[in-house]
Amino acid sequence: MKLQGTMIINDKGHLEIGGCDTVKLAEEYGTPLYVLDEEHFRNNCRKFYQAFTKEYGAEVLYAGKSLLTLAVCRIIDEEGLGLDVVSGGELYTAIRANFPMERVYFHGNNKSAEEIRLAIEHNVGRIIVDNLYELELLNKIAAEMKATVKILLRLTPGVEAHTHEYIKTGHIDSKFGLVIENGQAMEGVRRALEMERVELCGFHCHIGSQIFELDSYGHAAKVMMKFVNKVKEETGFKAGELDLGGGLGIYYYEGDEPQPVERYAEIVINTVKEQAEKYNLPMPKVMIEPGRSISGPAGITLYRVGSIKEIPGVRKYVAVDGSMGDNPRPALYQAKYEAYVANKMNKAPEEIISIAGKCCESGDMLAWDLSLPRVEAGDILVVPATGAYTYSMSSNYNRLTRPAMVLVKDGKAELIVRRETYADLLRNDLIPDRLKKKVLNIASVR
Amino acid sequence: MKLQGTMIINDKGHLEIGGCDTVKLAEEYGTPLYVLDEEHFRNNCRKFYQAFTKEYGAEVLYAGKSLLTLAVCRIIDEEGLGLDVVSGGELYTAIRANFPMERVYFHGNNKSAEEIRLAIEHNVGRIIVDNLYELELLNKIAAEMKATVKILLRLTPGVEAHTHEYIKTGHIDSKFGLVIENGQAMEGVRRALEMERVELCGFHCHIGSQIFELDSYGHAAKVMMKFVNKVKEETGFKAGELDLGGGLGIYYYEGDEPQPVERYAEIVINTVKEQAEKYNLPMPKVMIEPGRSISGPAGITLYRVGSIKEIPGVRKYVAVDGSMGDNPRPALYQAKYEAYVANKMNKAPEEIISIAGKCCESGDMLAWDLSLPRVEAGDILVVPATGAYTYSMSSNYNRLTRPAMVLVKDGKAELIVRRETYADLLRNDLIPDRLKKKVLNIASVR
Repeated sequence: MKLQGTMIINDKGHLEIGGCDTVKLAEEYGTPLYVLDEEHFRNNCRKFYQAFTKEYGAEVLYAGKSLLTLAVCRIIDEEGLGLDVVSGGELYTAIRANFPMERVYFHGNNKSAEEIRLAIEHNVGRIIVDNLYELELLNKIAAEMKATVKILLRLTPGVEAHTHEYIKTGHIDSKFGLVIENGQAMEGVRRALEMERVELCGFHCHIGSQIFELDSYGHAAKVMMKFVNKVKEETGFKAGELDLGGGLGIYYYEGDEPQPVERYAEIVINTVKEQAEKYNLPMPKVMIEPGRSISGPAGITLYRVGSIKEIPGVRKYVAVDGSMGDNPRPALYQAKYEAYVANKMNKAPEEIISIAGKCCESGDMLAWDLSLPRVEAGDILVVPATGAYTYSMSSNYNRLTRPAMVLVKDGKAELIVRRETYADLLRNDLIPDRLKKKVLNIASVR
Repeated sequence: MKLQGTMIINDKGHLEIGGCDTVKLAEEYGTPLYVLDEEHFRNNCRKFYQAFTKEYGAEVLYAGKSLLTLAVCRIIDEEGLGLDVVSGGELYTAIRANFPMERVYFHGNNKSAEEIRLAIEHNVGRIIVDNLYELELLNKIAAEMKATVKILLRLTPGVEAHTHEYIKTGHIDSKFGLVIENGQAMEGVRRALEMERVELCGFHCHIGSQIFELDSYGHAAKVMMKFVNKVKEETGFKAGELDLGGGLGIYYYEGDEPQPVERYAEIVINTVKEQAEKYNLPMPKVMIEPGRSISGPAGITLYRVGSIKEIPGVRKYVAVDGSMGDNPRPALYQAKYEAYVANKMNKAPEEIISIAGKCCESGDMLAWDLSLPRVEAGDILVVPATGAYTYSMSSNYNRLTRPAMVLVKDGKAELIVRRETYADLLRNDLIPDRLKKKVLNIASVR
C-alpha cells in the first residue's frame, strides 16, 4: 500500500484524504466520486515550479487534457503554472476561469478555424503549429483579424520514449509535427519566417508519456538543439523558446518508479545549456509539460461495492457502481491500478479479487487479481492515482451519469464538479413532432 | 464500396442518405455529424420482427446500449420491438419517451437499489437478475415496495462466441450470470422459486457480440434447454421464457459477412423446438437481442477534413474534426472501418491514407491505410456503420463537444440530438468561493 499525498489511515481504520474520511465523503456525495487532494495537487505544481521555474526560469505547462475544470484552472493559475490546451473547449474553460491568456499554449494536430479565431481573439500566449496546412490557415486568419500570432512549431524529432525505454532514431510515423529528418521541419521554419502575421518564437516536441527514463529527455533536447543550430545556420533565425514536452511517469502500480523532478530539470536544462554552448547559441527559454504528474497522483476515485460473485476455482468478481465510463484507462490501455477498501484499511489481505465495472460489457473490468481484505457489499473501494485521464475521458456509456468531483483540503470538501443527473443525459435529445407521443396500437401499424 | 440502406451517389457525385445530400447535411448541421438513416433503421427492425415475431411469436429486444435517444425509443416502439436497458439512465430515457414499460427488459451485473426501485416503480417488463446478491436485494426491495417482480435469471452457459468461431465448453470466467456447470445457476433457481416477491419467468444468456457463426446460437440454445429440463426435473418449474441474447455481426469492413436474419431465426427457434420436444417440455416464449444489427448499419458519421500531412515514404495522415471522443471503437477495440469522401464518390481511388482524429493523443486514429480519391482540406469524409457504440460511448475527451445527430428520411433531416456547446461542458463545474476571481500577482504569493 502506497499512501500518497495527504492520505492517512484514521483511527476508525478508514482512509482519509485532505483530512476528510473517504467513507463519509462517499456517504455525503454519493459514489462513484472523484476526490482531488488539493494539497497534493498544489505540492505537485510547486515541485515543478521550484525545480524548473525558480531554479532555471523555465516555464511549466499543466496538461489541461489530463484534468480541466474551472476550479482546477484557478489552482493552476494561483500556482504560477502555464496551461496547455488542446481544443476550443479547453481554451473556453480557461477563459471562463479567468486564466491569464498569456500563459496559455494551444496544441493540437487539427485546430479548426473557429478554434484558431477564439485563440487569437483572446490573445493566447502561443499557438503550437502542428503542420504546414495549419501554418497557412493561421496566417490567413490572423491577417483577417489584423493580428500577429506568436507560435512554436511542433517537430517530430525521431525519438520515441516508452515507459521504460526510448528509441533513439527513426520514429517519424506520427500524426503530430513536422519531421526534422526529411526537411519538412525546415520548410515550416522558412514558411513561418516569411509570413507577415506569424511570429516564430521557437520549437516544440513531445516524445511520449508515462516516461520513467529521464535520458530520453536529454536525447530529445540534443536533437532539438541540433535543429535550432541548423535553423540558425540556414536562415539566421535564433529560436528563443524550446518547449520540450514532457510526460513524466507517475506511480500507478507496483514497479512504477517516478523519477525526481529535480533530476528531470537538471537533465533537461543542462543538456540545453551544453548544446547552446556547443553551438554558440543563446540559451532559449525552456518550457516543459509535466503531463499527468500533477493531476494524476492527486486524485482518487471512490466506488461502492455491490454484487459479489465467486466462481469457485476460477475467480471472485466484485462489482462496483462505476465503470469504464468513469475510468476508461483499463479498457483502453490495459492500465493497471491498485485499489483499497477504504473502510477496512487496517485489515489484512484475505482474498484475491477482480473488480468489475457495472457496464454491460465483458471488457468493463477496473482491476484484476488484487489482494484485499474480505470485501462485502456496501464497502467503499478506493482507486488511487486516478486524477488524470479519468474524468477528462469519461463518457455516458450505458447512459451512466458521470460522477461528481470534490476538492478536499484540511478536513473540508468542496464540490467542484456536480454529479450528472438523468435529466443531463436527455438535455440535448429531441423528438421530431411526427414521432411524438404516438403510442400506437402496434397491431394497427402493420 | 458497400452502400448500405438508402445510400446512393447523386448526380453531383455526392453521397446521399435518406434522400439527403451528405455534403449539404455537413454544411447545415456542422461536423462531426451523426446521421441515422430512418428507413434503414426501420427495415432492420422489420427484418427481425418479421423473422422472429411474425414467423414464430418470438420477441425482439433492441439493445439500448448500442444507441438510445428519445427519438430512437419512439421508433423502436413504433416498430413493435422490446427494449433492453442496462442502467437507470437508459430506463429513464425509455420512460421519458413513453416507451411501453411491459416491453422493457432490465439487464446489468450490478444494478443499484435506486435503479431497481425505478424499475419496479415503473413496472418494467422483466428484470434480468445477474447474481445471487441481486436476487436477494431485489426480493427485499420488492417487499418494501409491496410489489411482485417478474424476472429472468442470467446464466453462464459455458459457450463463448467470437466473430468467426465459438468455444463449446468451459468459458465460465465471466462477470455476468450464474454458472450452470458448477450448480450456481440451480441454486439461483431454488432461491428465486422460494421468494415471495419474485416471479421467475425463465432464463437469459448472452454468448458474445459481432457474431457471424450462427451455429453458436444453436449450441447455446441446446445448453439452455438442457438446463430448463434439469430445472423441471429437480424443482418441477417449467420455464416459460428463454432469452437467448444475441449479438449478430454487422458489416464494418471487407470480410465481414452478416448472416441472414431468417436463417438466424430458423436455427434458434428450431433448436429450441427440437429440444423442447426431446425433453417433453412446453415450447417457451423466445426472446432474442439483435445487438448492434439494428442501429449499427443505419448510422454514418460525417467529418470535415482539416490538416493533411504527408510523410514521404512513410504515410499520409488526413486529420478530421472528430476523434476517439465521438468514436472510441478504433482505440478501444482496434475496430476497423471503411470511409469514403462524400463529395467525391465517383472519383477513382488515387492514394492510400490514414485518418487521424483531432485528439492530442497518438492513439487517436480512426482508420489506417484506406484507398481513397485525392483528399483535400474541406472534403467531407464519411464513415459508415457507425450507428452503434459511437454516440452511446462518446466522451468529451480533450473537452471536445459531442456531435449532433440527425435522422434522415425522404429528403428531410431532423435533429434528434443537439450538438453540445462549450457551455454544456461547464454546466456542472463549480469554483469554490475562496478560489474565485483570485487573479493574483503571482510574485506576491510565493
